[in-house]
Amino acid sequence: MRYVSAGESHGRVLTVIVTGVPAGVPVLAERIDTDLARRQGGYGRGGRQRIETDRATILSGVRFGTTIGSPVAMAIANRDWENWTDVMAVAGDKPKGIRETAPRPGHADLTGVMKHGTDDARDVLERASARETACRVAAGGLAKALLAQLGVRVASFVSAIGEVSMAEVPDPSAVDAAAVEASEVRCPDVATSELMKREIDAARADGESLGGVFVVTATGLVPGLGTYAEADGRLDADVGLRQPGELHLEGHLHRR
Amino acid sequence: MRYVSAGESHGRVLTVIVTGVPAGVPVLAERIDTDLARRQGGYGRGGRQRIETDRATILSGVRFGTTIGSPVAMAIANRDWENWTDVMAVAGDKPKGIRETAPRPGHADLTGVMKHGTDDARDVLERASARETACRVAAGGLAKALLAQLGVRVASFVSAIGEVSMAEVPDPSAVDAAAVEASEVRCPDVATSELMKREIDAARADGESLGGVFVVTATGLVPGLGTYAEADGRLDADVGLRQPGELHLEGHLHRR
Amino acid sequence: MRYVSAGESHGRVLTVIVTGVPAGVPVLAERIDTDLARRQGGYGRGGRQRIETDRATILSGVRFGTTIGSPVAMAIANRDWENWTDVMAVAGDKPKGIRETAPRPGHADLTGVMKHGTDDARDVLERASARETACRVAAGGLAKALLAQLGVRVASFVSAIGEVSMAEVPDPSAVDAAAVEASEVRCPDVATSELMKREIDAARADGESLGGVFVVTATGLVPGLGTYAEADGRLDADVGLRQPGELHLEGHLHRR
Amino acid sequence: MRYVSAGESHGRVLTVIVTGVPAGVPVLAERIDTDLARRQGGYGRGGRQRIETDRATILSGVRFGTTIGSPVAMAIANRDWENWTDVMAVAGDKPKGIRETAPRPGHADLTGVMKHGTDDARDVLERASARETACRVAAGGLAKALLAQLGVRVASFVSAIGEVSMAEVPDPSAVDAAAVEASEVRCPDVATSELMKREIDAARADGESLGGVFVVTATGLVPGLGTYAEADGRLDADVGLRQPGELHLEGHLHRR
Repeated sequence: MRYVSAGESHGRVLTVIVTGVPAGVPVLAERIDTDLARRQGGYGRGGRQRIETDRATILSGVRFGTTIGSPVAMAIANRDWENWTDVMAVAGDKPKGIRETAPRPGHADLTGVMKHGTDDARDVLERASARETACRVAAGGLAKALLAQLGVRVASFVSAIGEVSMAEVPDPSAVDAAAVEASEVRCPDVATSELMKREIDAARADGESLGGVFVVTATGLVPGLGTYAEADGRLDADVGLRQPGELHLEGHLHRR
Repeated sequence: MRYVSAGESHGRVLTVIVTGVPAGVPVLAERIDTDLARRQGGYGRGGRQRIETDRATILSGVRFGTTIGSPVAMAIANRDWENWTDVMAVAGDKPKGIRETAPRPGHADLTGVMKHGTDDARDVLERASARETACRVAAGGLAKALLAQLGVRVASFVSAIGEVSMAEVPDPSAVDAAAVEASEVRCPDVATSELMKREIDAARADGESLGGVFVVTATGLVPGLGTYAEADGRLDADVGLRQPGELHLEGHLHRR
Repeated sequence: MRYVSAGESHGRVLTVIVTGVPAGVPVLAERIDTDLARRQGGYGRGGRQRIETDRATILSGVRFGTTIGSPVAMAIANRDWENWTDVMAVAGDKPKGIRETAPRPGHADLTGVMKHGTDDARDVLERASARETACRVAAGGLAKALLAQLGVRVASFVSAIGEVSMAEVPDPSAVDAAAVEASEVRCPDVATSELMKREIDAARADGESLGGVFVVTATGLVPGLGTYAEADGRLDADVGLRQPGELHLEGHLHRR
Repeated sequence: MRYVSAGESHGRVLTVIVTGVPAGVPVLAERIDTDLARRQGGYGRGGRQRIETDRATILSGVRFGTTIGSPVAMAIANRDWENWTDVMAVAGDKPKGIRETAPRPGHADLTGVMKHGTDDARDVLERASARETACRVAAGGLAKALLAQLGVRVASFVSAIGEVSMAEVPDPSAVDAAAVEASEVRCPDVATSELMKREIDAARADGESLGGVFVVTATGLVPGLGTYAEADGRLDADVGLRQPGELHLEGHLHRR
């Protein structure tokens, strides 16, 4: 399974196509919407009004709730599109005064403007945007549907944000998934969650963002996913193997 | 530039994403629509009602008529979708009596049913369908827009259908493009065109289809496209090189 | 399984690496040598002295006659290398007077020289050479070893050379493999073989080469190899499906 | 440019093929040998006897010291092969008593044995070995030869090993390359280098290994390498952009 995504942050719609999807996998758009809502609900990501807005529309590859072996296309509409039709019009002449001329530091804006030879940073920042990750979440939801059918369970939690980290990182099998969901920062420890939120509040007040550490575990896998034999087939060396059939990923998100 | 397509023949919409598109290429949906109309207008392909129906909607990657370096997504809606919402529903239970149980000879239906373990050949035939080629036409239109900017001219004509072929296949540079467009079978010779149409009529009366031969030429290229050095970089050996900077393809379409 | 090859026609050695090879496949270099000898023994390809010269040396990926899941590297030494060390030296200064300045018509020479900006056509013609196909034969031998283990049988014969073709192309299952091997042109019909050889002799006398038609069949396959769902997963449309689990390829070799 | 490697740790030879190499790049095997010697010379990697042994033999793709546009194959012979011909024989029956039955903890051995269904961990550990990185060094040497021609300078140093790290990580442009080379642990600070060596010695005494941090910088690049537009074209997010045209990579090596 591979995915390809398209779409700008304030464009009409995000589109993602997943190829190589086997037939016979039960897929519900509603379950993918739950993942999309989790993505939007991160603490400090924006106001409440954004919660529950993204919806995945399955365009092809699924019939009567089951994949048929064709590529699966999904659309995630921009619910605010009506307010952006002038700035992000596909056709027509560009109105005066809508150019973005100040590239944001630490983003791809300046490099993109130099690469593409444009005088409008919006041509770059609309794609170099976290909004694209909604496509990855939708594609990941499809992957989770397949894995669920195979008896694979995927779990994750956040163990550190900024300088705040859990006193002891628990074994993922001992982590209560409901406690993770209940935390606005996806940390199963209530006290640490509160400290993390304060850390985020302080960073926001300074106009900063924060990195962190997350843990993802998959159990129920067959041994030998990926390969040691060829460089481009290796799973990332950060993906540790606790025991055959269990993947353990400890990832670091750097602040932007 | 690479394309990925999705969509079933009678599904809601065809979707195509083209990645690797450079910034700064002028793109008009109307020009792609012209190519889509050419695809639909082939002699013997169906009634008049199908002509001029397909429309490409550019969803992303183009702003004010020019590519911005992002992936270009395009949608081609199924104008007859309202009559297919029962048979091709994405969600819900499958109504009784809509299974296709007779695989068409010479198509992928039987193999697909065996591969995917389905009891409904529609799960296969909806994707194993010439309708998918509309996505290739749209992606090709984008490629032609880029090539036009580079001064590359692409021309083509049909030289044979079934047993009827042009007495002499002309040099592509001597072929009048308007004469090709004027022919319902894209053959620049008027008399041969008439014979080809009669050949098609006879085949249709027998419930048969026909193969043929087409010629495609591109001029204005740089020498050395593709490579002789690596097998997966070779342009097909059928693509002959008349002189450096000119590609010449003589293709054979087999009847189904 | 994928292969990558390297090596020039008169260089020290041809090298091929096959990746994605499963463990547990019995592989004998001697069996690959038989295929290499078949490649060299084609009628009209050269004198007797070339027969039985190519030898595949397995460098890695095989232990005690069985693949171990690592990439398989094979070398095919140039037995005439000692006579080419001056012209094809890897290091040192180029001696005067060894440039090739006459590109062969109908080959990649002229295009390659323009592409790479060299004044020595040998830099191109050494790679744009039929000798590279020895690597494909060796890689194919590995694939045949895997297929044999899975009960797949691959057979082939030549049905036409130049204007000479078999009166009736037989069903591949009815063709006697020993008769194919006994023919210098791999045609199971003795009388046709003789006519083909005369056709080749006549062409050689004129300084020409000839195209032809071959038939390859594989039986014992599972249904549904390749896919109708994605363009880059399709087996070539020329590969016809007689019945599920049987591939049938009728190929055309054009004269150079 | 892409590379594919083959070869086992104690096999006859390591082989690497680099494809997509442009013509006209000056390449010296001796310069690649210098990189191979740097790889072997790391503190704590083994005794003196291993130093200066690896040699790259260029087998194809280079003529009179310059690439010709063909794939470049290189071989790195195992200088100790004569002592391993019994254990690592390509053909013949496996002698009794040479199976490895104790998978090393923390390596791919156990998983590989389960994946491939073998009873000899040597089938796995011979490829799941740091020796393969010699191929990457040789391929990287070719890449450096191309980059040098384009005016790109690549520099690197080690900033931390185990718990020992430089008090302040210097700007790479301020680092003296000779000081890096003079250090057995590639750290430009002499005092820190000594502490790092003691850290390594202590770990070795405990039968342990250590992770660390390295910094790689490339200057003289064009802006916009990689892309923000497509997930599989992104350079790793760890590769920071100091300013357009400069790549900055801070990598973490985990202990095994």
